[in-house]
Amino acid sequence: MNAEIISVGTELLMGQTLNTDAQYLAQKLSELGINLYYQTTVGDNPGRLKQTFLHAFSRSDVVITTGGLGPTEDDLTKETIADALGIKMVLHEESRRRIKEFFGKTGLVPPVSNFKQAVMPAGAVVIKNDQGTAPGCIIEKDGKSIVILPGPPRELIPMFEADVMPYLDARSGRVIASRVLHIFGLGESLIEERIIDIVQAQTNPTIAPYAALTEVALRITASCRKGEDPRPLIRPVEEEIRSRLGDHVYGADDDTMEKVAARLLIEKRMKLAVAESCTGGMVTSRLVDVPGISASLVCGIVAYDDSVKTGLLGVPEAVIREYGAVSAETAEAMAKGALKICTADISLATTGIAGPSGGTAEKPVGLVYCGLATGYGIFVKQLQFSGDREKIRMRASMYVLDMLRRELLGIRQL
Amino acid sequence: MNAEIISVGTELLMGQTLNTDAQYLAQKLSELGINLYYQTTVGDNPGRLKQTFLHAFSRSDVVITTGGLGPTEDDLTKETIADALGIKMVLHEESRRRIKEFFGKTGLVPPVSNFKQAVMPAGAVVIKNDQGTAPGCIIEKDGKSIVILPGPPRELIPMFEADVMPYLDARSGRVIASRVLHIFGLGESLIEERIIDIVQAQTNPTIAPYAALTEVALRITASCRKGEDPRPLIRPVEEEIRSRLGDHVYGADDDTMEKVAARLLIEKRMKLAVAESCTGGMVTSRLVDVPGISASLVCGIVAYDDSVKTGLLGVPEAVIREYGAVSAETAEAMAKGALKICTADISLATTGIAGPSGGTAEKPVGLVYCGLATGYGIFVKQLQFSGDREKIRMRASMYVLDMLRRELLGIRQL
Repeated sequence: MNAEIISVGTELLMGQTLNTDAQYLAQKLSELGINLYYQTTVGDNPGRLKQTFLHAFSRSDVVITTGGLGPTEDDLTKETIADALGIKMVLHEESRRRIKEFFGKTGLVPPVSNFKQAVMPAGAVVIKNDQGTAPGCIIEKDGKSIVILPGPPRELIPMFEADVMPYLDARSGRVIASRVLHIFGLGESLIEERIIDIVQAQTNPTIAPYAALTEVALRITASCRKGEDPRPLIRPVEEEIRSRLGDHVYGADDDTMEKVAARLLIEKRMKLAVAESCTGGMVTSRLVDVPGISASLVCGIVAYDDSVKTGLLGVPEAVIREYGAVSAETAEAMAKGALKICTADISLATTGIAGPSGGTAEKPVGLVYCGLATGYGIFVKQLQFSGDREKIRMRASMYVLDMLRRELLGIRQL
Repeated sequence: MNAEIISVGTELLMGQTLNTDAQYLAQKLSELGINLYYQTTVGDNPGRLKQTFLHAFSRSDVVITTGGLGPTEDDLTKETIADALGIKMVLHEESRRRIKEFFGKTGLVPPVSNFKQAVMPAGAVVIKNDQGTAPGCIIEKDGKSIVILPGPPRELIPMFEADVMPYLDARSGRVIASRVLHIFGLGESLIEERIIDIVQAQTNPTIAPYAALTEVALRITASCRKGEDPRPLIRPVEEEIRSRLGDHVYGADDDTMEKVAARLLIEKRMKLAVAESCTGGMVTSRLVDVPGISASLVCGIVAYDDSVKTGLLGVPEAVIREYGAVSAETAEAMAKGALKICTADISLATTGIAGPSGGTAEKPVGLVYCGLATGYGIFVKQLQFSGDREKIRMRASMYVLDMLRRELLGIRQL
């Protein structure tokens, strides 16, 4: 079964909105085992939309449109598609009632223009929208399906998951499963070198690497006929890859480094303190993103000014004078100080030069010291990161969180 | 002049990569005054790519492709387009030399497959790539232009800006300018109500609102013939909008709330301390994203555990016992404590329930207290935010940074 996406909206063609809907739908279609061969973006222009729709309808089994369901005059997706298919538009009474109720909650009277959103192609299955006033719909014609959805992701995603996914799943003959492995500390080319023979020997599952800023993700995708389970095809390939890449594989699927580290901390009932300079709260903030971290995270101190490093964290003034605020010695003293004043079991520290200014020949922009202390010892690593201020801070945060993961797992540090 | 974008890559149609290139190019074409009517994504499939290209070439003056220039066998954009146009592929000696040099820097010998990247359509203007091994090119045929660029944004963006923009600018007859106003504390519908008459009265400039998670952006776009300046068309409209929305307009163009607040802090030579609980370092981290903030930011304390609130920040135990860690009284004491122990001129504090658990009927998830203290007084605001853990943290961070901005400007708090 082949599908095609048409994204409707002049704001997309002006570059004002990033088309995340297309990526979301592409992922979901892939999970459903439905081939997606084309995605087209077109503006709020009935002529070009009609032409694009008819072209898509002629070559695909399923056409999914997003956007153009708003209350204003230039929102014309439903009307244009109905016109192209020779279907009349009729008032959908339940949608009209829902729009009235939606405004009722806010205490406002709905503008007349909103009721345009309750007028639907005759015979369409209407998809209700709990997050807004624009219902979607599914039209069936000539054995093909047209799915019409609103543009805002907070409306589109719940509607797709509640109503469109089950509908498409019932029509699809195949099923796909994916497994993503998250890898830190090995570049894309080194990873490829280690696993190239596995990649080349496989057609089902397929293996594809994607390099992100601070990690590489490997996606293993298997497909099979409906009723069968694609996951047993993935397992042996995943195991072989893991044995080649070792402890560089830090997680799978939805894992992030902070989730993995936080999970280990919570499991081991360890109390953590964080002392940050160049990362400026990013390490702590990433950990706080993980629900349940309050059981383990005692405190984070952003010791941005040297007076805080000496006053609050107890870094000796002589250390900063002699070695500088960006030094292995200061990172060590920061980690020690955080451990002590927060009475934690383990602590992390970062100090470095995030730029754009402040670098010297001896201590260039991107130089970062990452430290980790426990009651048993202290470990400090000197690193040289590339990129702008934000990238350096992200890379340093990732590195120090991996140090924490490695310490908690009792495996070697990089 | 009409342009069209073709994004090539199976990873886009699988949803593994978000198509940020399309948005970037859309923005740039808009700035150049070039109409973009279509953007199509197609996989690494020569048949479908050829068909899509020929369709685009028949209806647009400029066709820009991204992706499919890699060294592997399924990277076929150049070859497919040359085939569609009846152009031969020839080795481009300078590109071959550059690929060799590129690998030389890394100390590696280039795989033979990489030299495929030096084979270009005959007669094309080659665009060099300083960030990778895939050169791009511009082909002119039948008075139309085809621009072929690699997919990775870190390669595409510098190539587009150095070589493609000047080329397209020379061919475009119009010029566009945009101004974005950033608005906090007013919803999209309230903004529309206040300015609807201005929006409806305008065709040049046009005014379009875009609601993001924590703000609304209003884009004012004017166009005129080349050689004229579109900016004087924007100015009176911007002034009228500012007069209607008042101090809710916190910045323009690339401004963010943290940039605006940091700029004011640095100008006024004020020292800032931040005490965070529910936001968990996000406020500090956002400020640290701004270069130069080290002149003003003394320290940030993430007092996640109550022991840190009492021990480090000096929140009286009785306050936490009587009112709870999430209370106006605790926010006030946190702000006071941060001001004192960091010897700062101004301090911020947040305490709240970010969820997903921890909420009660009396103190539901999303309840946040934001505090601000100076030597002259303390101000605390109780807020109820909606959304998941991350959204609540982002909304609270934005709010407290706006409190800082308002204090530094000497304007009323919301």
